[in-house]
Amino acid sequence: MSSFSPSESQPETSHNRFSFSQRAQWASGAAIGKLMAQALAHPDLLSLAAGFVDNASLPCEAVDSAFKRMSSTPERMRAALQYDASAGNRELREMIADLDKSKANVDNLVLTAGSNQMLHLLAETILDPGDIVLCAAPTYFVFLGTLRGVGARAVRVEADADGMCMEDLQKQLQLLRQKGLASKVKAIYCVTEFDNPAGSTLNLQRREQLLELVARWRTENQSQLLVLSDNAYRELRFSGERLPQLTEIDSHTDYVIELGTFSKSFSPGVRVGWGVLPESMISRTLEMKSNIDFGSPHFSQMLMLEVLKGGEWQQHVPQILEVYRSKRDAMLNALELHFKDAEGVHWRVPEGGLYIWLTLPEHIDTSEESELWEESLRQGVLYVPGHHCFPTYDGEGLYQPPPKNTIRLSFGVQDLAGIEQGIQKLAAALASCLATVGG
Amino acid sequence: MSSFSPSESQPETSHNRFSFSQRAQWASGAAIGKLMAQALAHPDLLSLAAGFVDNASLPCEAVDSAFKRMSSTPERMRAALQYDASAGNRELREMIADLDKSKANVDNLVLTAGSNQMLHLLAETILDPGDIVLCAAPTYFVFLGTLRGVGARAVRVEADADGMCMEDLQKQLQLLRQKGLASKVKAIYCVTEFDNPAGSTLNLQRREQLLELVARWRTENQSQLLVLSDNAYRELRFSGERLPQLTEIDSHTDYVIELGTFSKSFSPGVRVGWGVLPESMISRTLEMKSNIDFGSPHFSQMLMLEVLKGGEWQQHVPQILEVYRSKRDAMLNALELHFKDAEGVHWRVPEGGLYIWLTLPEHIDTSEESELWEESLRQGVLYVPGHHCFPTYDGEGLYQPPPKNTIRLSFGVQDLAGIEQGIQKLAAALASCLATVGG
Repeated sequence: MSSFSPSESQPETSHNRFSFSQRAQWASGAAIGKLMAQALAHPDLLSLAAGFVDNASLPCEAVDSAFKRMSSTPERMRAALQYDASAGNRELREMIADLDKSKANVDNLVLTAGSNQMLHLLAETILDPGDIVLCAAPTYFVFLGTLRGVGARAVRVEADADGMCMEDLQKQLQLLRQKGLASKVKAIYCVTEFDNPAGSTLNLQRREQLLELVARWRTENQSQLLVLSDNAYRELRFSGERLPQLTEIDSHTDYVIELGTFSKSFSPGVRVGWGVLPESMISRTLEMKSNIDFGSPHFSQMLMLEVLKGGEWQQHVPQILEVYRSKRDAMLNALELHFKDAEGVHWRVPEGGLYIWLTLPEHIDTSEESELWEESLRQGVLYVPGHHCFPTYDGEGLYQPPPKNTIRLSFGVQDLAGIEQGIQKLAAALASCLATVGG
Repeated sequence: MSSFSPSESQPETSHNRFSFSQRAQWASGAAIGKLMAQALAHPDLLSLAAGFVDNASLPCEAVDSAFKRMSSTPERMRAALQYDASAGNRELREMIADLDKSKANVDNLVLTAGSNQMLHLLAETILDPGDIVLCAAPTYFVFLGTLRGVGARAVRVEADADGMCMEDLQKQLQLLRQKGLASKVKAIYCVTEFDNPAGSTLNLQRREQLLELVARWRTENQSQLLVLSDNAYRELRFSGERLPQLTEIDSHTDYVIELGTFSKSFSPGVRVGWGVLPESMISRTLEMKSNIDFGSPHFSQMLMLEVLKGGEWQQHVPQILEVYRSKRDAMLNALELHFKDAEGVHWRVPEGGLYIWLTLPEHIDTSEESELWEESLRQGVLYVPGHHCFPTYDGEGLYQPPPKNTIRLSFGVQDLAGIEQGIQKLAAALASCLATVGG
């Protein structure tokens, strides 16, 4: 397959005879839909797949206190129950801008229902069918679905434990330019810290290189290339040193969009996320947001504001860092224990976030059609097959089949015992497959 | 202008040099954005424009009670703070399906953050650029923006106090077929009760005719034509008799989508809406929803569930009916009082909802460029110029300039005194314009 051929068309099953939009057809079969269906089909399984947060440490008391303060002031309570502006509650925007070390301010910050809704809003605002976004291989699979849904192409950039490799980014950009596609390249997408799925963090040197490289590309190609810096996991650092955000390194950039959320650091149910946008993009993005839902739920925003003003968020974050550190360690210990004799199995140690990226021997297929998948279901454990996380084109427009021997493991949702059991089951499933292969 | 020429292109101002997507350009200049900007620019004015709900009767105590019950059960509170399914909370879907008299059930009901988000989701799922949706003239202007944003065309159908005229609907459909556009016609959109902006309700006979007409069109044209029945104001009936929903009249239809919301009947800040979909559309719509935000905020949904289970919603609705009835009556009285001598001014009496539709003499322009607008701002009152609410094409694809002598008045947000003052100011502004015109 060559030169960005269209997505494989989906067979129209009989119950899908309805004539859906082109976008609905592009969006069809996105990984998130498949994975949620699997989870629903196997509620009894021990899930190392779900990107849910730790259940036991959810901030019930914090929300209770914050709500009580809010409800004891009738004007605030009424405001929470009423509509607000498309950009979201002004006081919360001010508060987040104050907490944020980047170039956020009340006017360039837009609130959404989680940072994923902001990713979708940005995709709608900047991308046309055929446009190109460079992503790490692997990267956040839901965003790959979003890109596919607007008809855009994800081009893969090599990545390692320090995130996206800048040399390969440069190489892919050059290839795209040689193909005459420079004007189609609209954004570089990074989950900058403890990324989903690989747990890697873009190191400081690469952050600086990225900014330089993009600035140069924009000048040389008269391009509006953007960097989407997805900081969804930023607050979940439980080891290593804090790194500056891209817009802290260079506060003059007008080509970096920083995305943040309280979903991971506080509550995905309350679901307040945001984007810090270049000035030139704000009015168009807000027009788009107005058309979609004229602002995300105000009640959630006012509640989150109360949580920040009362200091509950600030107290909650250190507590959950302890929780996630011990969960990560439990998973690392279980991996050491159960995979110590398995040749060709390795994994990364993340400094934060919710995920560990596992690589199996090259001949082991982890996909939904594989023996390992079936055996894992039999053993009673669910994981995310890593192939969903790979952009499938390179800068020449050549199809690059995703490696099939990787797995995204989440230590977010299971308790310590569940993590240990899950890894044990996975190891048993692998052993069973290796025995078959060996025999 | 003829045959669905492209939307007037927006001049690119210098701060908008960024290369936005085609959709962002289509969405640019949508009425909702302009109107919100005006409201923000004139916070001191008495607004008869905002579609906000009555502030004084917002259900503070009801939400307080419901929250307390939820937070006293740790498992429920934790569930509210966690992620949930893309379709939304299952128990709430069951509860709404039980309350709903239509063909809703737990599997065909999808929750969104307000019914507007559902309208956007449906537009994304079924419409391609160039597709056609028939709408009443006038209709809900935010949906016109949504249609424009996906590159679809709104074709106008005549409407009166009983909603969309079926004869004209038939005529426009025939014209579209004669133009060879039958396959582009994807939906008919109705705000079925107390519509925004005209306050009119589709009567029973027309409901039956609409169902027949669509069924016939689908057969004759091998078409998947849908009816989007927007019931946003359904619960706000304060006079007249309840009418059956479209899917109550014919429960076998698989071409009607019913949209509902608690935004008007309870709280737009909590913002829970829904759609009841034909079976053939559910999986694709959910895939789209998963890509966008994998489910609207769960906290809002669980809170709304508690409100329904506790009976707070059921108690709240009759209370606000009293409030809105007296507000409507206050506006009608003020109109009688202040416009009694104004020739050529007339208005409709809505049986529910939040809006009164005002028609001025034909030579009076109400648009943002008009003398009346400027004079109203000077007098201190803000309204929605009616021209925003008109689809601008007919079934032949001919441009139909929107009438400029109408106004959408909302009695939702002002108190009784504010309504009286607002109408008095508006009458003074009109008198001033008529004096000028006359002189």
